[in-house]
Amino acid sequence: MEAELKDMIDDLESLKRSLPDSSLHASINKLELRVENLTKMAMSATARRSKVKDMSSEVVDSNPYSRLMALQRMGIVENYERIREFSVAIVGVGGVGSVAAEMLTRCGIGRLLLYDYDKVELANMNRLFFRPEQVGMTKTDAAVQTLADINPDVVLESFTLNITTVQGFETFMSSLRNKSFRPSKEGSGVDLVLSCVDNYEARMAVNQACNELNQTWMESGVSEDAVSGHIQLLIPGETACFACAPPLVVASGVDERTLKREGVCAASLPTTMGVVAGLLVQNTLKYLLKFGQVSSYLGYNSLKDYFPTMAMKPNPQCSNAACLERQKECILAKPARDAAAKAKMEAEASSATECSLHADNEWNISVVDDSNPDSVEATSADALPEGLTHELPNADDFKKSPAPGPTDTSIDDLDLLRKQLEALNAD
Amino acid sequence: MEAELKDMIDDLESLKRSLPDSSLHASINKLELRVENLTKMAMSATARRSKVKDMSSEVVDSNPYSRLMALQRMGIVENYERIREFSVAIVGVGGVGSVAAEMLTRCGIGRLLLYDYDKVELANMNRLFFRPEQVGMTKTDAAVQTLADINPDVVLESFTLNITTVQGFETFMSSLRNKSFRPSKEGSGVDLVLSCVDNYEARMAVNQACNELNQTWMESGVSEDAVSGHIQLLIPGETACFACAPPLVVASGVDERTLKREGVCAASLPTTMGVVAGLLVQNTLKYLLKFGQVSSYLGYNSLKDYFPTMAMKPNPQCSNAACLERQKECILAKPARDAAAKAKMEAEASSATECSLHADNEWNISVVDDSNPDSVEATSADALPEGLTHELPNADDFKKSPAPGPTDTSIDDLDLLRKQLEALNAD
Repeated sequence: MEAELKDMIDDLESLKRSLPDSSLHASINKLELRVENLTKMAMSATARRSKVKDMSSEVVDSNPYSRLMALQRMGIVENYERIREFSVAIVGVGGVGSVAAEMLTRCGIGRLLLYDYDKVELANMNRLFFRPEQVGMTKTDAAVQTLADINPDVVLESFTLNITTVQGFETFMSSLRNKSFRPSKEGSGVDLVLSCVDNYEARMAVNQACNELNQTWMESGVSEDAVSGHIQLLIPGETACFACAPPLVVASGVDERTLKREGVCAASLPTTMGVVAGLLVQNTLKYLLKFGQVSSYLGYNSLKDYFPTMAMKPNPQCSNAACLERQKECILAKPARDAAAKAKMEAEASSATECSLHADNEWNISVVDDSNPDSVEATSADALPEGLTHELPNADDFKKSPAPGPTDTSIDDLDLLRKQLEALNAD
Repeated sequence: MEAELKDMIDDLESLKRSLPDSSLHASINKLELRVENLTKMAMSATARRSKVKDMSSEVVDSNPYSRLMALQRMGIVENYERIREFSVAIVGVGGVGSVAAEMLTRCGIGRLLLYDYDKVELANMNRLFFRPEQVGMTKTDAAVQTLADINPDVVLESFTLNITTVQGFETFMSSLRNKSFRPSKEGSGVDLVLSCVDNYEARMAVNQACNELNQTWMESGVSEDAVSGHIQLLIPGETACFACAPPLVVASGVDERTLKREGVCAASLPTTMGVVAGLLVQNTLKYLLKFGQVSSYLGYNSLKDYFPTMAMKPNPQCSNAACLERQKECILAKPARDAAAKAKMEAEASSATECSLHADNEWNISVVDDSNPDSVEATSADALPEGLTHELPNADDFKKSPAPGPTDTSIDDLDLLRKQLEALNAD
C-alpha cells in the first residue's frame, strides 16, 4: 500500500507540472496532503517491532524479553537465551498447533517449522489465533503472517502439504533432516517435533518419521466432544511409540486418539485447546531448557478437572520396525546412559530428584542390527529401557514401581491404561 | 481510511471538471483508478465477519458457531445458545484477562465488561493476545479493537479505570449493577465477575464489590516466578471470601497471592497464563451452562504438572463485614436450598453426583440483619453453609468429609491449606 501511495504522489507532481493554470495547484496540493495522511495511516497500521540482536534482561517497557529473561533471575531457568538455538517442528496448525506456535514465537524460539494443508474457515473462529479476515488463506500463510508480526526474531518456515501423502512425507522427512539453521547439531535438524494433528493417519506418519530419525517428539490431542485432551512425550526406543499402544486404546472407543469419523462435526472449545497447547508448550520449554519435570503423559479431563499422568513402556512386539530398532539401541546404550546419569547426579547433588527423561537423547552410539524382537527378554530386569514405570494417576508421587517381567507387564500396563481411560471418560 | 479515500475521489472529480484542457483527463482517470485500488486494499484489510442473528448448528465452513453448537449434539451442554444471555465482567486485561476475554468472545458470550487502566507495552509481548502495533494504546481499547473484529456478536463495554481508587470503585460498582442488557435478571447486571488482576489491593476491591452485591466471582493468579497459578470460585457467604483466608497464606511467603513487590520484574510465560486463562474460562462455561463439575479451587504447578483442588469454608471471624452478612444469609437460606436441591435431584435422578456448586445462586430470600458474628456456632453442624468440605488434592474423589465443629475446623483447614501450598511451592 505504501508503494502505491508513493506512486500517486509522483503522478500528482507530474500533473501539477503539466497544468497550464497555476490556480489549480491548490487543489493538487490538497490531494497531496491527503495522500501523505493516508501514508501515515498505512504505515502505523503495519508498524512492526524491529529485530532484537541479543535477549536483554533489562527491565524497561520496550524490552520484549524482560519477563522471559526474569526466569533466570528467579532461578527457574539456567540460561533462557539458549531458546534461540532451538528448532521446533509443529505438524498441524489448527486449534492446538496454532496456539502452540504463537506461544513458542512469543517465547522467542529460534526457528519454527509449520506443516498444514488446510485453509482458514469461519468455522475455525471458535478457537484462538486465526482472525476472520484470514478466511480463505492457507493456515500456514495466515500463521506466518501473524507470527512474523508478533516476533520478527523467529525464523519461520512453512510447508503447505499433507504429510500422509508419499510426496508430502518425503518433503516432511527432508525438512526435518535439514541442518542449515544449526549445522553443528547432532541427529536431525530439529530439537523437537510437536504433533498437533486431528487424525490417526497423520499421527502414524509423524510416528514413522520420528522413529526413523530417532527424533524425540510430543503428541497432543483433544477429544471429539471438546472436553478432554492429552499430551504425551515419545522418545524412540525409550517410551512407547504411537504404534506400541493405540490399538487397545482405540478399541475401547473412548479415547481422543480415535479416527476422525467421516461426516461427524466434532465439537471444539478454545478453552480445552488453549489448555492443551499451554501444557504442550510448557512441557516443550521444560524439555528444551531443562527445568522442572518433563511429563511423559498428561491427560486433561475438563468436566472433573482431573489430570492423570503415566509413563508408557515400548512394546517389544510393536508392529513398527523402526521402533524395534530404537528399542534395541536403547537397551544397548543403557550402561553408558546410566554412567552419564550417575556422573551428572554426582555433579549436581542438589537436584537429585531429576527424572530420567531429562537425560540427553543424543547418545551417539552405533548399534548392531539384530532383528530378534524377543531380545528384550534376554536382558536382566533392570536393563529394561528407561521410561518403563507404570504410574497411577496421582501426579505428585513420581515413585517408580519395581519393574516386573517385560512382556506381561507391557500388556498389563495397556490394560490398566485402558481401564483408566474408561474411568476418565465415564461421566 | 475508506472515508478519506472517498473524499479523494470527490476532489479528483471536481478537479477534472475545472480543468480547461480535456487532454489531462487521462491523468486524473489514472489517479482515480489508483484510489479505487487503494479502497479495495483498505476494505480487504478491515474485512469483518457480519453479525449472526441466531446460533446455527449447521455444519458448513462459513458457520462460526458450528463447533460450539456441536456440544449439544455430543450431549455435553443442554442449551449452548443460552450463552448469548450472559454478561461476564473481566477485571484486569493482562496476560490472563485478555486471553480469557478472547476465549469468551470466540465462545459467543452475550456481553463482556472489561476493566484496566494500563497501556500495552513491548514488554507484554511474551504473553498471548496483544500485538506489537498496539503498543501505546490502552489495554481496554486494544482489546475492544481485537475482540470486535473476532466476533461482532458480542456486546463489549470497556472501562479504563483503576478499581482501587474511590472514583474507580464507584464506577465499577455501578457498571456491575447496570441491568440494561438483561433487565429481567435477578441480582446484579452480570452473571459472573472474573478477577484477572496482579495485585492484592485489586483483589480486595473485587472481593468487597462482590460481597456487597452478593455476586459470585472467580479469582485467578499466576506466581511471580511464572511457573504456577490457580483459579478459585467465590460465592459470597457460601465459600471463603478473599478476606477470609489470604492473611495466613500470604504470611507463608510462597503463594502467588502476594503483593506485587516494588522494583521486582516478575517473570511471565504465555504457557502458564494461557493454561490459567483456559482453566478459568472452562470453569466459567461449566458454571454458566451447567455441565461438568465446577471447581472451587484448582491449582497448577507447572514444574510437577500437579493440579491440587480443594474447597474453602468462609471464616466466621472474617474481617469483611459484607462477607459476614452473606454468611448469615447463607445459613438462614440453607433449609430452602436443601429442599430445592432435593427436588432437583429427584427430578434428575440420573445426574445424582452433581455437586452443590451447581445450585442457582439467586435464592431470592430476604434475611433479617443480625450483627452477632458468632451466630454460626449456634446452628447445628449440618446447618453450616454449603461448600464447607475440605478436600485433599486428589481431584477425582469428590467425597465430603463429615462436617466438624465450625470455628476450629476453619482454622485447621487454613493451616492444612498453607502446608499444602508450601509443599506445592517447594521444589
